[in-house]
Amino acid sequence: MTVSVNRQIRLKRRPTGEPTRDDFELAEAPLPTPGDGALLARTIYLSLDPYMRGRMNAVRSYSASVELGQVMVGGTVGEVVESRHPGFAPGDFVVGAGGWQEYAVLNGAAARKLDPREAPLSTALGVLGMPGMTAYVGLLDIGTPKPGETVVVSAAAGAVGSAVGQIARIKGCRAVGVAGSRAKCDYVVKELGFDACVDYRAQDVFAGLQQACPNGIDVYFDNVGGDVLRAVLRLLNVNARIPLCGIISQYNATELPPGPNLAPILTNRALIKGFIVSDHGDRLADFLRDCSAWVREGRLKYREDIADGLAAAPAAFIGLLQGRNLGKQLVRVGEDPTRR
Amino acid sequence: MTVSVNRQIRLKRRPTGEPTRDDFELAEAPLPTPGDGALLARTIYLSLDPYMRGRMNAVRSYSASVELGQVMVGGTVGEVVESRHPGFAPGDFVVGAGGWQEYAVLNGAAARKLDPREAPLSTALGVLGMPGMTAYVGLLDIGTPKPGETVVVSAAAGAVGSAVGQIARIKGCRAVGVAGSRAKCDYVVKELGFDACVDYRAQDVFAGLQQACPNGIDVYFDNVGGDVLRAVLRLLNVNARIPLCGIISQYNATELPPGPNLAPILTNRALIKGFIVSDHGDRLADFLRDCSAWVREGRLKYREDIADGLAAAPAAFIGLLQGRNLGKQLVRVGEDPTRR
Repeated sequence: MTVSVNRQIRLKRRPTGEPTRDDFELAEAPLPTPGDGALLARTIYLSLDPYMRGRMNAVRSYSASVELGQVMVGGTVGEVVESRHPGFAPGDFVVGAGGWQEYAVLNGAAARKLDPREAPLSTALGVLGMPGMTAYVGLLDIGTPKPGETVVVSAAAGAVGSAVGQIARIKGCRAVGVAGSRAKCDYVVKELGFDACVDYRAQDVFAGLQQACPNGIDVYFDNVGGDVLRAVLRLLNVNARIPLCGIISQYNATELPPGPNLAPILTNRALIKGFIVSDHGDRLADFLRDCSAWVREGRLKYREDIADGLAAAPAAFIGLLQGRNLGKQLVRVGEDPTRR
Repeated sequence: MTVSVNRQIRLKRRPTGEPTRDDFELAEAPLPTPGDGALLARTIYLSLDPYMRGRMNAVRSYSASVELGQVMVGGTVGEVVESRHPGFAPGDFVVGAGGWQEYAVLNGAAARKLDPREAPLSTALGVLGMPGMTAYVGLLDIGTPKPGETVVVSAAAGAVGSAVGQIARIKGCRAVGVAGSRAKCDYVVKELGFDACVDYRAQDVFAGLQQACPNGIDVYFDNVGGDVLRAVLRLLNVNARIPLCGIISQYNATELPPGPNLAPILTNRALIKGFIVSDHGDRLADFLRDCSAWVREGRLKYREDIADGLAAAPAAFIGLLQGRNLGKQLVRVGEDPTRR
């Protein structure tokens, strides 16, 4: 291997409100060396996800912030170039947390080997990766949907939301999406098979949901909070469940806005439960078994929105927070030899 | 029986904001006659509870509103004067939903016989009745407290709150109350054995809770919503549980205020669950067994705040919503022959 430089994107400045490109910097570092039990991987795909916005703040969210000058964190699919872990060899493909850089040292114990004959490598960051598993455990374990119930999901055209609605359909539910454009709503209904989708930018979200959910709402998989959550609460059925997955609407807020009045939670004996996919590692095997099968059978579809080159990551991330992507937002950091 | 007139308190007008005495009227009706399967009971105690405020509105809450001109609903303890149900005989004491009146026809299937040798009759409306059971199922089944955890409860000197804190102590938890006066806090700590109590009228509730909960908050039994809930969310531990029992702070609101920002629910994977005691009838036997024993053993104490005479009910109810009571608010509507 002749490469000796590792290009990285580091956090340069903590954003106030919406991040800008100047909050990131492209830098070079020497190629790192893996220690015992670790491996060096060449990054092929980098996953961009809304949670990363929280890591850019000084305030601890789920986990520690990214420090100024540190490489931005993120899930990656890579190709092993050097291994000091018995489970991996050069040429293996792996999914891990490599961050926004061209090469990363991964802890072998935390990396997972991928078989490119089973599914495209990139799916390990989307429908068969963290976002897919977020949809799976949040919907099934917290939302506990029953056949005939109505499941609403916001950010419905995104990596998580698109899986939520399709899994809801597989479980015999009415699936209703909320998304931010006509194109997204068309995708969600016509391509993914949701029963309906409300374009919150084009119409009043309460009126739209009321029409799309004639029997009320039993499960609301919440990715966004804000006005959509407020509207959903007015349409809640008794014993409704709300898996709280994200609050994208306020990730760029400089001051946290008030939340919804909780009276409907009380009167409907409803449940709101925050969750984080990383707490549910015991469900990984179930998730991979079910969702791989559903993808193969064509019942669980996905789209990817792929930006090209590491340098494109900041703009793609800013776009993700603005809802400009359709489907899973990825960055192709290096060549994918399985897609030649 | 020579009585032929039944005095009642009826809903005269729907309150705007805080109820006033003019929203109620004292009226007389002929003594009713029980049909098959029913019984006529002379009311001894009437229970006053915050949920009744919701019933005075035109908007459906848990259950239907009280119509204008109808007798106000409410739990009662009475003495059977005539029975057309095989399970009851004149002279029996029963707890049921008699409403704000001196005599009531009760459905025998929904009434429960009381043995005055086991516990004072009035406790069937408090610590061994609906409020006690609300505390029991909300704390144990939704709050699921574990030994060593910190349990916070608002309206801590009330019928529900005082039981919540004591049951939390019985289960090995640190119990912290929030109440609206020094006298209430003293009662809660010195008489009921809570570990601490925050007087939200005398001090900043967040600062008070922060001091009283050095290890954060694992369970918050919420009776009030509003500022206390907001403060609690800032001190939540990972996997915290919030049984949502009431939102007293807004029962008199003419417009529903916004709620708390839910970011701490997400980051702490916390749970908020609304509940209503009437959904949990399957736990009645467990509740009566456990709480009766704890009362006998002196581990579950209670106080009653008893207003005298049916005519005193409106003022006592208005006072309850203002937090003027200490302990379970009752009205003695008729003589209690077991307390002579």
